[in-house]
Amino acid sequence: MNIRPRENAPAWKQNAYRIIFESDTRAGQLFDIVLLVAIVLSVLAVMLESVRSIEAQYGPALRVVEWVFTGLFLVEYVLRLLVVRRPLAYALSLLGIIDFLSIVPTLAALVLAGSRYLLVIRTLRLLRVFRIFKLGQFVGEGEFIVQALRASRFKILVFLTAVFTLTIVVGTLMYVVEGGQNGFTSIPKSVYWAIVTLTTVGYGDISPATVLGQSLASVLMIMGYAIIAVPTGIVSAQMALPASGRPAAPPAFRQALCHVCQAPEHRPDAEYCWRCGEKL
Amino acid sequence: MNIRPRENAPAWKQNAYRIIFESDTRAGQLFDIVLLVAIVLSVLAVMLESVRSIEAQYGPALRVVEWVFTGLFLVEYVLRLLVVRRPLAYALSLLGIIDFLSIVPTLAALVLAGSRYLLVIRTLRLLRVFRIFKLGQFVGEGEFIVQALRASRFKILVFLTAVFTLTIVVGTLMYVVEGGQNGFTSIPKSVYWAIVTLTTVGYGDISPATVLGQSLASVLMIMGYAIIAVPTGIVSAQMALPASGRPAAPPAFRQALCHVCQAPEHRPDAEYCWRCGEKL
Amino acid sequence: MNIRPRENAPAWKQNAYRIIFESDTRAGQLFDIVLLVAIVLSVLAVMLESVRSIEAQYGPALRVVEWVFTGLFLVEYVLRLLVVRRPLAYALSLLGIIDFLSIVPTLAALVLAGSRYLLVIRTLRLLRVFRIFKLGQFVGEGEFIVQALRASRFKILVFLTAVFTLTIVVGTLMYVVEGGQNGFTSIPKSVYWAIVTLTTVGYGDISPATVLGQSLASVLMIMGYAIIAVPTGIVSAQMALPASGRPAAPPAFRQALCHVCQAPEHRPDAEYCWRCGEKL
Amino acid sequence: MNIRPRENAPAWKQNAYRIIFESDTRAGQLFDIVLLVAIVLSVLAVMLESVRSIEAQYGPALRVVEWVFTGLFLVEYVLRLLVVRRPLAYALSLLGIIDFLSIVPTLAALVLAGSRYLLVIRTLRLLRVFRIFKLGQFVGEGEFIVQALRASRFKILVFLTAVFTLTIVVGTLMYVVEGGQNGFTSIPKSVYWAIVTLTTVGYGDISPATVLGQSLASVLMIMGYAIIAVPTGIVSAQMALPASGRPAAPPAFRQALCHVCQAPEHRPDAEYCWRCGEKL
Repeated sequence: MNIRPRENAPAWKQNAYRIIFESDTRAGQLFDIVLLVAIVLSVLAVMLESVRSIEAQYGPALRVVEWVFTGLFLVEYVLRLLVVRRPLAYALSLLGIIDFLSIVPTLAALVLAGSRYLLVIRTLRLLRVFRIFKLGQFVGEGEFIVQALRASRFKILVFLTAVFTLTIVVGTLMYVVEGGQNGFTSIPKSVYWAIVTLTTVGYGDISPATVLGQSLASVLMIMGYAIIAVPTGIVSAQMALPASGRPAAPPAFRQALCHVCQAPEHRPDAEYCWRCGEKL
Repeated sequence: MNIRPRENAPAWKQNAYRIIFESDTRAGQLFDIVLLVAIVLSVLAVMLESVRSIEAQYGPALRVVEWVFTGLFLVEYVLRLLVVRRPLAYALSLLGIIDFLSIVPTLAALVLAGSRYLLVIRTLRLLRVFRIFKLGQFVGEGEFIVQALRASRFKILVFLTAVFTLTIVVGTLMYVVEGGQNGFTSIPKSVYWAIVTLTTVGYGDISPATVLGQSLASVLMIMGYAIIAVPTGIVSAQMALPASGRPAAPPAFRQALCHVCQAPEHRPDAEYCWRCGEKL
Repeated sequence: MNIRPRENAPAWKQNAYRIIFESDTRAGQLFDIVLLVAIVLSVLAVMLESVRSIEAQYGPALRVVEWVFTGLFLVEYVLRLLVVRRPLAYALSLLGIIDFLSIVPTLAALVLAGSRYLLVIRTLRLLRVFRIFKLGQFVGEGEFIVQALRASRFKILVFLTAVFTLTIVVGTLMYVVEGGQNGFTSIPKSVYWAIVTLTTVGYGDISPATVLGQSLASVLMIMGYAIIAVPTGIVSAQMALPASGRPAAPPAFRQALCHVCQAPEHRPDAEYCWRCGEKL
Repeated sequence: MNIRPRENAPAWKQNAYRIIFESDTRAGQLFDIVLLVAIVLSVLAVMLESVRSIEAQYGPALRVVEWVFTGLFLVEYVLRLLVVRRPLAYALSLLGIIDFLSIVPTLAALVLAGSRYLLVIRTLRLLRVFRIFKLGQFVGEGEFIVQALRASRFKILVFLTAVFTLTIVVGTLMYVVEGGQNGFTSIPKSVYWAIVTLTTVGYGDISPATVLGQSLASVLMIMGYAIIAVPTGIVSAQMALPASGRPAAPPAFRQALCHVCQAPEHRPDAEYCWRCGEKL
């Protein structure tokens, strides 16, 4: 949706929009970089505040930092609302919601302690980093990844459903086999163990101790070994597709339509339309 | 095998079959969704019952839930038997056996305690979820995965045999090297460790403590690093196959030459020559 | 090297060779299957003997089993030597050496206790399993994997050298950073840790406890995440090669040569030689 | 930059350059191999020195070894400076800096204890190993890997940024969920845990103990399962690219038609038409 200010809007709005929302000017890029640094610093502050020893020493200072950043982000948010053509459209867009959510927790923490940690939602603002490289190669690359994942989403969903069913069955089996001992104290815990094992994470907080349990676990691990090939294969094949598909395209028909019958896709060296025989 | 009721069967059978076994009608889809929810809930009940604290508090209620679901599934199973053309064919099909096994454990638990956990076989009924998306894209995707795995099955079998042989040899070596200490108390245990390591799960319940043992483990890990590439490569190559095979077809120009100017390579649907404009 | 008995060898040699070394006859296949079962059982016996509780109870019986199998394998080994054309060529082939090594340990154990565990070398005899499927699809599949790995061997070697260098550098850094604490008691141990981490095995027997150490470990893990893509990519690309290469071949020239100028590779529909213009 | 000595330089410089910097002569290859062995031995010495028990016994001897190697490398470094055309250009090149850094720590350790471990920078000199195989297949293979990674670097950077953002968000969530217990004592520690989990390393030094925490961890693991497919897919697709690109060329028939029968698709080296036998 177009949120750029109308052409008859005052000049300051036009300029502010260019600086805040776009990054094809010097000032716009500077704004984006300053914003990114601010985001990183504010996230860092929240993270440091959670470390007890740092909190004990620098607690008050960090809280000041937090309020300063919250203030800055509030100003920025209001500016964005003022500048755009349709404030509501921006406020309800994904980026708008993230911008809003990165301000609220500080205020909410006055009422409800602990909600301050939601400030880490600010991390999501880091996604703006991709904006800066807009003119560069990054957007295309990100889109390439996202598009490959989107094209594979049904396959991955089917795959994950099968994996999830498998972990429930194996988890229950292990619960029965290990007899509720060695950490397998309930079926949900055993399923958790099965997921930890199948994904090859393997914490070791729960691990089988009976011979039968270890045999079953071995089978699960070797299956996981073969299974991990599936999502990789799906995404690899998907990503290789355009690469090996590209050469297929370049039959490279001419884009211009026939001026008589509007037939598309003529050979690049064609002199006559293939449908109506008219001189191109 | 065709289990659809004969055309001269009573109308209620025809309708019941459509609702229970197919999902191309409103009612059929509704039936499938209700069934799925029931399956999920019944599996959840079994899982929760295994958690001691929940069992202590809600045990009787959960047992009632279990009997209710078992009753429902029994009714459904009998209905399926009544409706189909050849009850035995259905009862001996994979889905039929799973349907049957998801009822039995509750009854068996009256005789043999502990067999109730086999109720989790019900999870396998979740595979029916794919039926609902029959009209959608899911069946094709699932078939794509299954077909790629089936085409790779000999390669994966050869690969797993080699891996298994490797783990037995390395496991025994480690047993000798670590001298029965540090958890390597027997060859089977050492083989179990080798599998845990080679698959990169790495629980850490058993890990080498001697210098020689750690060196050997390092070699195994780095080999595992290279080895994990094999199943992934197999499946990726298999999945990329149709993709890179498909584009091979589309050049697909018509082979016939223009009878006037002998120009080759006309579009298959071309009516006029692209070089001289003559009617083909 | 051809080890098949000469054509003028006595008939019993010819027959014995067919049974022992080949598997294209009934008897030959039966021999191979019996041999495989014997190998599996003898390996199992060695493994079980290492389990203390089983050894305490069935120790003598297992030792008898071991001697019986060793006797059988000895007879088999002698038979092989008698039957082949050049006994030395067989004895020095890879399979011959493995066959020999699977007999020796039992005898050696009389002198040197503990060497009996080398019996697990017998596992390598399991590789004979692939012989049985010789006529089937397995040999081709195994060759496909081996050939893909062989074609990638230089790439993988370069890759492993780089990985190994990286683990030494990171391991030493961690030794300095963690100050010899938390399990990082020496550089070799730290390198071992780096390998455990980079390969995503992650036992957890050694893990960083300082903030700087955990940061460095995080970087290593994320690098390992990207690095693991390399061997997979190498093997995948290699395996996809023949698949996407195959369609490239079928220009499918005719194999027959021109009867005048011996020019090869004519179009399948060619009527005249492309080099000398003679009627084909 | 060309650092080869001028053509009017004294003969000993020309020869020394050939031996030290190149490996296309007998002497040059010998020099490289001796150098490599020296590097490996000196790195080994540093590593062994860090093992307390070995240090206690062989400490003085190892220190002598270290000084000997440092002396040798110093001589080598000075020689390199003397021989090349522009000493500064070499000293500031990557290899020159590594060569320099592999000498300094021993001297620096006189002043600042502990800096001796930086000697492991010498490991980087192992990269010279690839020089020896210069004439062989290795350089091409290494370049293949490096080039595939370089071509994928933007995609991998975008991917890693997304992964890093994800770990911060999940880490904070876990900190809130586990309530600062079970090792999740601060947000940075929780982020560290998230990285350990998402990369499937899974030490188990920190692992969730609450039901909610284990559920969240399960989701993260299964996501990691799907996510690991991304870098692999990127690199695989990249590496498969030239392979599937190459076969695209070979159709390569000559486009010109026969001037008599207008037959298309002649071999590029054909002299006669394959259909009518006329001279092309």
